[in-house]
Amino acid sequence: MSNLKERSLKLHKDNKGKIEIRTKVSVSTPEDLSLAYSPGVAEPCKAIQKDPEKAYEYTTKQNMVAVITDGTAVLGLGDIGPEAALPVMEGKAALFKEFAGVDAFPICLDTKDTEEIIRTCELLAPSFGGINLEDIKAPKCVEIERRLKKKLNIPVFHDDQHGTAIVTTAALLNSCKLTGQNIGDLSVVLSGTGAAGSSVARMLKAAGVKTIFAYNSKGVVTKAKYDRYDFVLQELIDEGIVSTPDSLKEDSLAELLKNKDVFVGVSIGNIVTRDMVKTMNPDPIIFALANPTPEISPDEAKKGGAKVIGTGRSDYPNQINNVLAFPGLFRGALDARASSITEKMKVEAAKAIASIVSDEDLSSDYVIPSPFNKRVAKVVSEAVLQCVKETLQGEQA
Amino acid sequence: MSNLKERSLKLHKDNKGKIEIRTKVSVSTPEDLSLAYSPGVAEPCKAIQKDPEKAYEYTTKQNMVAVITDGTAVLGLGDIGPEAALPVMEGKAALFKEFAGVDAFPICLDTKDTEEIIRTCELLAPSFGGINLEDIKAPKCVEIERRLKKKLNIPVFHDDQHGTAIVTTAALLNSCKLTGQNIGDLSVVLSGTGAAGSSVARMLKAAGVKTIFAYNSKGVVTKAKYDRYDFVLQELIDEGIVSTPDSLKEDSLAELLKNKDVFVGVSIGNIVTRDMVKTMNPDPIIFALANPTPEISPDEAKKGGAKVIGTGRSDYPNQINNVLAFPGLFRGALDARASSITEKMKVEAAKAIASIVSDEDLSSDYVIPSPFNKRVAKVVSEAVLQCVKETLQGEQA
Repeated sequence: MSNLKERSLKLHKDNKGKIEIRTKVSVSTPEDLSLAYSPGVAEPCKAIQKDPEKAYEYTTKQNMVAVITDGTAVLGLGDIGPEAALPVMEGKAALFKEFAGVDAFPICLDTKDTEEIIRTCELLAPSFGGINLEDIKAPKCVEIERRLKKKLNIPVFHDDQHGTAIVTTAALLNSCKLTGQNIGDLSVVLSGTGAAGSSVARMLKAAGVKTIFAYNSKGVVTKAKYDRYDFVLQELIDEGIVSTPDSLKEDSLAELLKNKDVFVGVSIGNIVTRDMVKTMNPDPIIFALANPTPEISPDEAKKGGAKVIGTGRSDYPNQINNVLAFPGLFRGALDARASSITEKMKVEAAKAIASIVSDEDLSSDYVIPSPFNKRVAKVVSEAVLQCVKETLQGEQA
Repeated sequence: MSNLKERSLKLHKDNKGKIEIRTKVSVSTPEDLSLAYSPGVAEPCKAIQKDPEKAYEYTTKQNMVAVITDGTAVLGLGDIGPEAALPVMEGKAALFKEFAGVDAFPICLDTKDTEEIIRTCELLAPSFGGINLEDIKAPKCVEIERRLKKKLNIPVFHDDQHGTAIVTTAALLNSCKLTGQNIGDLSVVLSGTGAAGSSVARMLKAAGVKTIFAYNSKGVVTKAKYDRYDFVLQELIDEGIVSTPDSLKEDSLAELLKNKDVFVGVSIGNIVTRDMVKTMNPDPIIFALANPTPEISPDEAKKGGAKVIGTGRSDYPNQINNVLAFPGLFRGALDARASSITEKMKVEAAKAIASIVSDEDLSSDYVIPSPFNKRVAKVVSEAVLQCVKETLQGEQA
């Protein structure tokens, strides 16, 4: 690992960062300049002034996504500030380009104030075809995304919330196929009710799951603790997305897991044991996504009888990795000129990811495609594009 | 010209804009990802968190300039709004990369409010090594640049003000060489006291010119009209940079030009005649920079006896073009890790541009190098780098 650390520092230093700006047109002769710059450039300017939609025809807006953070919840590092967040945002931009040909630019804001972050995104919108919010602390990130979705006519997407949720949903769809269970019959225990957890709950519900119980740092989520929860969790309860147990022998994750079908962890490492897995219903499905240390190690989970085990790690089967979702999702949204990213688009993206795994290949160790399967982004983008088209037709009909 | 218009529109449409994001490192294998993204990326993040200066080592900040506009004074088009300004900003970014290897990213802000523009630039600063303000209306642009220079520790430069000023100063230095005059003895008439005009006045003064009279839409600049001027022009008078005539037979440019050595126009077309040039001192120097129609056509000026004639146009000799200044200036400032761009750096840049023209080649039709002379940016950047080094040594001494 120390070797990895040194090599990562060297990679970043030798390349002086991970992205650069390239020109798509030549500007090295007077002729070039008269077309790409003055005086010729006045023409696309005037065309866009008449009809702002033309920006999608004549500028990079049509393919440019802003990767915006305030550096308050970066990876496992927490609130490290905007400068220190830049390497992660550059990495994100590199993934956008590599996996889906999306031009993405990292913007690290020197403020933690919700109003300033929202206002700045509004002011930046003209140059961008979409906004990917990244590594912003919960619950602030939920309010920021929601209000921007209302204000802006370009897609706004907070990957930490929905990326994990989309890929987890895809993995669960295939797990049901494998176990022969109906997603509507599953009882799910969710550990972690922050940015990712709240979105996982909403997506699983949207995908058909009826029963989701939740657990967080305050213990089992119950109506009794309602006033101690942030607005995000309170909404999940109010909207009946998270169910609250009527009575529990004890306020523990162990107790909550008894006779449940699925565990989804987006919380902290080593909180689930093999004995707890043994108390779950037959063929339990375990997605332990805490990184780098999962809620339960795959080996432990297997010894507890888990049928399917997924983690966030690349060194175990079934890696639940956001990169399976966001590149294709934005590719499709940009290609469709979608004005926002809807719940339906996210569910279609999940189904598309799941569809990559053929019935023949489907197994306990393969319910989700590899993050490096280049087909994924293409299939996801096509599903999203199709979803937008059908929605528009529906509205016109 | 209509042909040019169609071809420019086609160029922009076919290429879907003029710039793109490229990755400098591979992210196509698990190994790649573990170094460029999670978990390896945590190392440069932590290093920068400890010491923000490390951002210049591990990220694109070291070579990334924001080209920021509010779209209120775009080319000759005026206040066309942020979306419509994007093609020009993309063109600027292309020039930065092509002429000096500087990565530049266009940001078009959806506000015209001075305070919001300043605050947004502050919030964006962590991702950038410098800020190039572009096509922002005067006098607002002067206040925005000044206050940002005080607030930020990265170079902030408003090209419309200083780019023209630097290149005009370079052309005047070589013109003096040609006519054998001492720059300190020159009397200059400046037409136009906006963004460019005010900076031209300050730079010529810094370069040694003692006497500068000014003319604008309100006529000859005099103490009597003081209260009708914006704060930018009032400062020029207060600081003795612009001289005001004690008495004038009539309030006209014609009267003002009599017995002067130099005319610099950054105003509007066709306001100077050959007869007016004839009333100037011997070997008058004329820089008629209004675009596309100069204050006086080179042919007219020649018939009036002008010794040197420069314009902003590519189809006449001595084109005064900003591209001779800003790429090398920022290249040098970034290479020197300068925290700001000083008057001295701008004067050194002007001298460096002038130095490209050898004594043998110097002539009435060649006082300034071609915008496409690739040596210019290199020589300018080296002069700026040297200037910063000497300043630092001076401070340490």
